[in-house]
Amino acid sequence: MRHVLALVYKCSVFSKQLPVVCNQFRFSHAETQLQWGSNKNHRKIKIPNPLKDIIMADPKIEEILAPLRASVKEQGDLVRKLKEEKAPEIDIKKAVAELKTRKKVLEDKELSLAPVEELFDRAKMEDLIKRRFFYDQSFAIYGGITGQFDFGPMGCALKSNMIQLWRKYFILQEQMLEVDCSILTPEPVLKASGHVERFADLMTKDVKSGECFRLDHLIKAHLEKIKAEKNTKAELKAEIEDILVKLDGMTADEMSALMKRFDMKSPISGNELTPPIEFNLMFNTQIGPSGLVKGFLRPETAQGIFVNFKRLLEFNQGRLPFAAAQIGNSFRNEISPRSGLLRVREFTMCEIEHFCDSKDHPKFESVKDTQMLFYSADSQEQGKLAEIMTIGEAVSKGIVNNETLGYFMARIHLYMLAVGIDPKKLRFRQHMGNEMAHYACDCWDAECLSSYGWIECVGCADRSAYDLTQHTKATGIRLAAEKKLPAPKQIEVVEAVPNKAAIGKEFKKEAKAINDALAALDTNALEELQNKLDSDGEYNLVTPNGEFKLKPNLVSVKKTQKTIHVEEIIPSVIEPSFGVGRILYCILEHNFKMREGDEQRTYFSLPATVAPMKCAVLPLSGNAEFQPFVRELSQGLTNVDVSHKVDDSSGSIGRRYARTDELGVPYAITVDFDTTKEPHTVTLRERDSMGQVRLPLTDVPDVVRDLANSKISWADVEQKYPKFEQQETVKGAAA
Amino acid sequence: MRHVLALVYKCSVFSKQLPVVCNQFRFSHAETQLQWGSNKNHRKIKIPNPLKDIIMADPKIEEILAPLRASVKEQGDLVRKLKEEKAPEIDIKKAVAELKTRKKVLEDKELSLAPVEELFDRAKMEDLIKRRFFYDQSFAIYGGITGQFDFGPMGCALKSNMIQLWRKYFILQEQMLEVDCSILTPEPVLKASGHVERFADLMTKDVKSGECFRLDHLIKAHLEKIKAEKNTKAELKAEIEDILVKLDGMTADEMSALMKRFDMKSPISGNELTPPIEFNLMFNTQIGPSGLVKGFLRPETAQGIFVNFKRLLEFNQGRLPFAAAQIGNSFRNEISPRSGLLRVREFTMCEIEHFCDSKDHPKFESVKDTQMLFYSADSQEQGKLAEIMTIGEAVSKGIVNNETLGYFMARIHLYMLAVGIDPKKLRFRQHMGNEMAHYACDCWDAECLSSYGWIECVGCADRSAYDLTQHTKATGIRLAAEKKLPAPKQIEVVEAVPNKAAIGKEFKKEAKAINDALAALDTNALEELQNKLDSDGEYNLVTPNGEFKLKPNLVSVKKTQKTIHVEEIIPSVIEPSFGVGRILYCILEHNFKMREGDEQRTYFSLPATVAPMKCAVLPLSGNAEFQPFVRELSQGLTNVDVSHKVDDSSGSIGRRYARTDELGVPYAITVDFDTTKEPHTVTLRERDSMGQVRLPLTDVPDVVRDLANSKISWADVEQKYPKFEQQETVKGAAA
Repeated sequence: MRHVLALVYKCSVFSKQLPVVCNQFRFSHAETQLQWGSNKNHRKIKIPNPLKDIIMADPKIEEILAPLRASVKEQGDLVRKLKEEKAPEIDIKKAVAELKTRKKVLEDKELSLAPVEELFDRAKMEDLIKRRFFYDQSFAIYGGITGQFDFGPMGCALKSNMIQLWRKYFILQEQMLEVDCSILTPEPVLKASGHVERFADLMTKDVKSGECFRLDHLIKAHLEKIKAEKNTKAELKAEIEDILVKLDGMTADEMSALMKRFDMKSPISGNELTPPIEFNLMFNTQIGPSGLVKGFLRPETAQGIFVNFKRLLEFNQGRLPFAAAQIGNSFRNEISPRSGLLRVREFTMCEIEHFCDSKDHPKFESVKDTQMLFYSADSQEQGKLAEIMTIGEAVSKGIVNNETLGYFMARIHLYMLAVGIDPKKLRFRQHMGNEMAHYACDCWDAECLSSYGWIECVGCADRSAYDLTQHTKATGIRLAAEKKLPAPKQIEVVEAVPNKAAIGKEFKKEAKAINDALAALDTNALEELQNKLDSDGEYNLVTPNGEFKLKPNLVSVKKTQKTIHVEEIIPSVIEPSFGVGRILYCILEHNFKMREGDEQRTYFSLPATVAPMKCAVLPLSGNAEFQPFVRELSQGLTNVDVSHKVDDSSGSIGRRYARTDELGVPYAITVDFDTTKEPHTVTLRERDSMGQVRLPLTDVPDVVRDLANSKISWADVEQKYPKFEQQETVKGAAA
Repeated sequence: MRHVLALVYKCSVFSKQLPVVCNQFRFSHAETQLQWGSNKNHRKIKIPNPLKDIIMADPKIEEILAPLRASVKEQGDLVRKLKEEKAPEIDIKKAVAELKTRKKVLEDKELSLAPVEELFDRAKMEDLIKRRFFYDQSFAIYGGITGQFDFGPMGCALKSNMIQLWRKYFILQEQMLEVDCSILTPEPVLKASGHVERFADLMTKDVKSGECFRLDHLIKAHLEKIKAEKNTKAELKAEIEDILVKLDGMTADEMSALMKRFDMKSPISGNELTPPIEFNLMFNTQIGPSGLVKGFLRPETAQGIFVNFKRLLEFNQGRLPFAAAQIGNSFRNEISPRSGLLRVREFTMCEIEHFCDSKDHPKFESVKDTQMLFYSADSQEQGKLAEIMTIGEAVSKGIVNNETLGYFMARIHLYMLAVGIDPKKLRFRQHMGNEMAHYACDCWDAECLSSYGWIECVGCADRSAYDLTQHTKATGIRLAAEKKLPAPKQIEVVEAVPNKAAIGKEFKKEAKAINDALAALDTNALEELQNKLDSDGEYNLVTPNGEFKLKPNLVSVKKTQKTIHVEEIIPSVIEPSFGVGRILYCILEHNFKMREGDEQRTYFSLPATVAPMKCAVLPLSGNAEFQPFVRELSQGLTNVDVSHKVDDSSGSIGRRYARTDELGVPYAITVDFDTTKEPHTVTLRERDSMGQVRLPLTDVPDVVRDLANSKISWADVEQKYPKFEQQETVKGAAA
């Protein structure tokens, strides 16, 4: 997706090629207590360094990695040197591509050498996700469509809870301006943003069947096959290696030449292929019945915010800084969607555009001690490890460009932990100079480690004034703010003063065009006008109606002093952009667990805040005596807005516990024969520890609500109420 | 939109032609206290009958209306008679069209005669909506696109609060299964649902400019113009009147003939027009790069639920009834969008599909005393008034078909009141036999009275088994549930028993086709097979490969007894379908108010539950002493999740109150010089009454939270805390 990378950094967040590591991917497992409460915004969380823990502990492993590290560093130094020497662009590109390859080799090796503490079985998790309908392929009864997914009750609730928390965490706490803009977008808007021209991938088509292939994927597969053949000469092999390294930076013409030279055909049918085609990734349609108004489904929600900048600024009473946010769906017509939720055609984003005139942030102090894992551009170029430090250190050392960017990175970090991302599997990776969009000062992606490798889940970029400038150019409407100057300022105003009567007399009906053209002259042109009048005694004015010679009797240049109190500025934009589906997938991977000693009993250890339902109500059996208590509990839970499920199906209690565990439900309430006696009590069970307490039925709704809101912890509950000793091994026996 | 009406009832909810009454529309105003609390689900609300109040009170008005009522009744009786006599369809159609016209005349007259208690000034409200960016036209800086709107911070928050309340009200309280399905839908799905073929309007195009006109609108305008001309003969006028009445039921050919006969040209350019074109209202695009997979933006969210029926049933452990719900955007490429949010191209819907095998409802008892306004098909046909009764009465009298439909209608009613719809301006109108989709047993629309007339905001229909049957036919996958029989049942199983060896010998390679065809015979065919073998000694079997004669040595028919415990049923579907934008618009109209004696001070009296922000924090002036208290309040409010806005701009307190009133913010807290003294207190002001109390600063967050959640009322607050007497007339003077 290199064509895109050059344009908007965000594309890389959502569509970078995902390396598939392996299906049974090993990574270190650590149970981490996440602490999240609405009363405590910035609880500090100690984060161990995963790479350090996993790899540095073993000197043998570091010995294996040392030459790979050296190789990256060598290439990184070369890139730096070439840049310093201002070497030809093609040489730098080639060197960068080689650097990326070496980095990839190092990273894959690091991951493959990580000690196995737990086996992650993706197939098993995917089975659970489908079986319990967290999500599944859309339109499956019609054969399904790749790259589209429907979220079932559990996935939908999880997603909706993540979004609700996001709203609280960002919009409410930061008092952002939330907007909800149109998905269908007319062409001129996306022309201005650059998407019509540049949001594209190269592909090629089978001339007979019409089947499409992403061109870089096709070339890579073809050349790797040749390289692997026995009778391929060493010389050609070396050349192919060289081509593969350069592939990422090639133009359509270069790729076309490769197709011809190696006589590439469709790998499926053997048919001829078309020359490279630029395929725009936006879905297009027509707005209105005439077929004349071309429109696209938006590829990001951000543009809706930019085109409303003036209204939002006005809503904020003209003051900077302010942030606008939007939650909504975006669409990208991927050539080959894959990796489940990670590369899809329709996805939900949460985007923030923070408009500011200064990069300091008043609330930075409140997050400065947040410890995070930073993988800076420098570390990447030097083959070094990612480092743990506080965001305060990172900003003060200049690793992170400014406080505002740093503030949002810390907030992203805290949000990710709150929704259940394992802090050991979360890092912030800085874009290297060559992968950053041309307008950006600094770019960091929050990446989560998954069985597909490190996945970009949130981007956090400094977009500068790029978008507002583009839309200003396209519409002629100035998307700018006025800033009060610290003190009034004297400025010199230069303007052309036409002698309108004389001009009218001489040029008749052209007079208006001439006066308009004079009024539109900028400072430089006015200076030239003055000079020409002084030196040549006339000035050649260019207007849409032709050129006209003006003499000093027709026009003069006037300079005046003016006091101004405000200056016009186009604000900078810091943009945190969240891919909800990707985060959701990583949450599921990070929380997929098996019961010790029973690999068949899998469950999701989701934090209660985002768990699809907060509790299950389970009558011990179908006995009619239990029904009034079940109803009372359900009503009580509804009254305090606690989502829950009554499971009065016939399975044993143990089986029903297992079922609620699979759904990630954190708490289960059991109504048994003791419940029917006064005082009415029930058991309350916590999913992860499987611990149980006995408590009065009437206490339950408030206790579960407070647990779900993290107002109290399970430990508090265990302290307050007696432990219920008849544990799960009893499985379904009548109490 | 008659082409659509025949297909899905919902289309009528979202696209029926809206009569524009007038801009300065007069209707009776009544302040109604809405009571909504999470602990009290079904609080009874007494509803006065608006028509009774407004019209019946004045016998003079009723005298004017009497002949119109008689005229409707006369025509209603005629329609009924024609139906009973099974008259030709065209005669019934014509009679029904005339009935509708007469109904419309009656209704317009009723509304025009309503006594004026308050003038509603739509232009003034729209100005406020734009000025405070509740919503506005999308892409306005690019000239805008009709039928598309962007919601600004206030509109977005209002919409989001409405949806959050909907989720609580329906999904949480009814334990529905929420899903989140794809918007992009492949063609076969919408072919099965009937949308590809029939979701269309007729239009015509200017052959030169390409400008499009909705055909029925164009014909109507053209004929009305002729009718109004002075020298048009009485004969032609009468004929035109007749045509106008029939227009709604005409085919494309009939309309085409009219265009020719009256020589219709473009009303704008005078150019020729194309013959009628069926314009499908779905936006189309291609999914994937090949251009071969045709897809549409969904026109409703319902289909996503139907195609997932099997997964949802399984999630519900195979049991009926259950309800699935979806909140999301749908798209319709309207030929001529208009009336602001009421007819748009992109809109948010909340839809419920309640799958059931019995129409009784266990919770009906809990809502049966809800009083609502019913406008039954019968009342409409007889020119009678809408009637107030309880939903219990309506169901027991058979006015509403069944308990489940009635239960949802009552829940819709209560939800509408909770979000701020004026109960005097809410009615349930039943579809008349001729406007109901062919599969529906009963259909009621919740309509809100607005300055555009009565607007359909929620549809509630009994869709029967239509959709599941259609998708079963299209995919071959049985979308059905199994229902346990009350007792095991003996059934007779009839099957054909082929003598495979003999068939193979005689028919060779055709044997398989023959065996397959025999296995596929249904009960009737098997009976015929037996009869033919008995009577003729042979049977003519039709297969895809041709016909074959079978004799008794090749096939026999076997009857066996089998015990079954379950039966397969295709459930019925009750579908409440909410148009969020339309409800939002009506909420704004119903809550748009002016301060007595000051027409310039307008505000929205939105219920706190849905108000975009719950309170404003206003320091009396820019004095630095106030800052710590403002910060403390803001933090305290954030901690209890109360959305709020700090307005420390320089305007007087009175001006800032007016500003928060315009935004519909129900409460305002003022920090003044008394706040700085111990004990620290502030004033709390209620928007509608403008009453103020003085209370300790630390009490504020919980008090405002409880007010916003309707846990306490303003009266409770006034009782608990001393009244603050220094009222708003003081406007900004230092305390």
